[in-house]
Amino acid sequence: MRSNIQTIKQYYKLSDRDLFNNQPIISREALKTSNNERKMMYMVGVLETYEELIRQMLNQLPTPSPPTAGSKQNLTSGSAGSSGSDAASNIRQKLKDILERVQILKRKHYQEQAKLLHGLGELKNIEVNNIKVQSKALVELLVLYEEASSLPNDVMRRRRRRRQTKTKTHLRG
Amino acid sequence: MRSNIQTIKQYYKLSDRDLFNNQPIISREALKTSNNERKMMYMVGVLETYEELIRQMLNQLPTPSPPTAGSKQNLTSGSAGSSGSDAASNIRQKLKDILERVQILKRKHYQEQAKLLHGLGELKNIEVNNIKVQSKALVELLVLYEEASSLPNDVMRRRRRRRQTKTKTHLRG
Repeated sequence: MRSNIQTIKQYYKLSDRDLFNNQPIISREALKTSNNERKMMYMVGVLETYEELIRQMLNQLPTPSPPTAGSKQNLTSGSAGSSGSDAASNIRQKLKDILERVQILKRKHYQEQAKLLHGLGELKNIEVNNIKVQSKALVELLVLYEEASSLPNDVMRRRRRRRQTKTKTHLRG
Repeated sequence: MRSNIQTIKQYYKLSDRDLFNNQPIISREALKTSNNERKMMYMVGVLETYEELIRQMLNQLPTPSPPTAGSKQNLTSGSAGSSGSDAASNIRQKLKDILERVQILKRKHYQEQAKLLHGLGELKNIEVNNIKVQSKALVELLVLYEEASSLPNDVMRRRRRRRQTKTKTHLRG
């Protein structure tokens, strides 16, 4: 991973001033919490951002001329920047490797969080300016509001119980 | 809440066929998890959807003619549909009440989740097709990927420890 990224960095010729300007692209604010579930929730967003970003990079790389038979034009234009094209296809492979690692990590460990992120995304597609949708949603709010009100108490109760169990074990241990 | 929503429902004259068509506007899929933190994360998305939806409803309601002094035209146009306008201002108040309750609930119990949702939203604003952004982000991936890889193991280890503590307490209790 490290050497792949090193090669890509050189290809894009980013200056150190650009790289180390103390303005990270991916904010680390949400990772400062001690709640691991929330951290994982943010991480899946980060992983999906990288998927999108690397796909964009792949799209923006100069495409290798396709080996279509009998197309002289393609051959000529392909040979024009052949060493540049080689470098690009090298970068292409490295980007694909990174993308794959990101996807494997997400599939292996972040499936539940990815599902939730997808659910949150679907909420954005609700037609909030459609009158039928509005009043139907308001009727659904009755149950949802009640659940949203009791949920934090459930969490608190469970945490308290966990703390008590811990203290008991410490006292007995 | 219940009576407010009842009144609003009547005002918008939604048929029962529309209301009970087994196609909820707000999906309950993400609430089926037993993980309360994830449930809360989804709930904050739901609460924000309602904030947006109710704001839209308020915007779409016929506006009461403002009581500007010396504006005869306003007075006349205001009196044209006065009973309709009364009903609308009644609905306006009820919608505002519901909006306030949603906002209070969010502020009181969902602050951390709202912050995280905001963080996830910011990820969407990253210019993934900007070359400088891309290579800088890739350099940041080195650390992030490592964290994203170890985080699930930390969570598992912590859960295992919690389960062991529980079993011990049960054996001793």
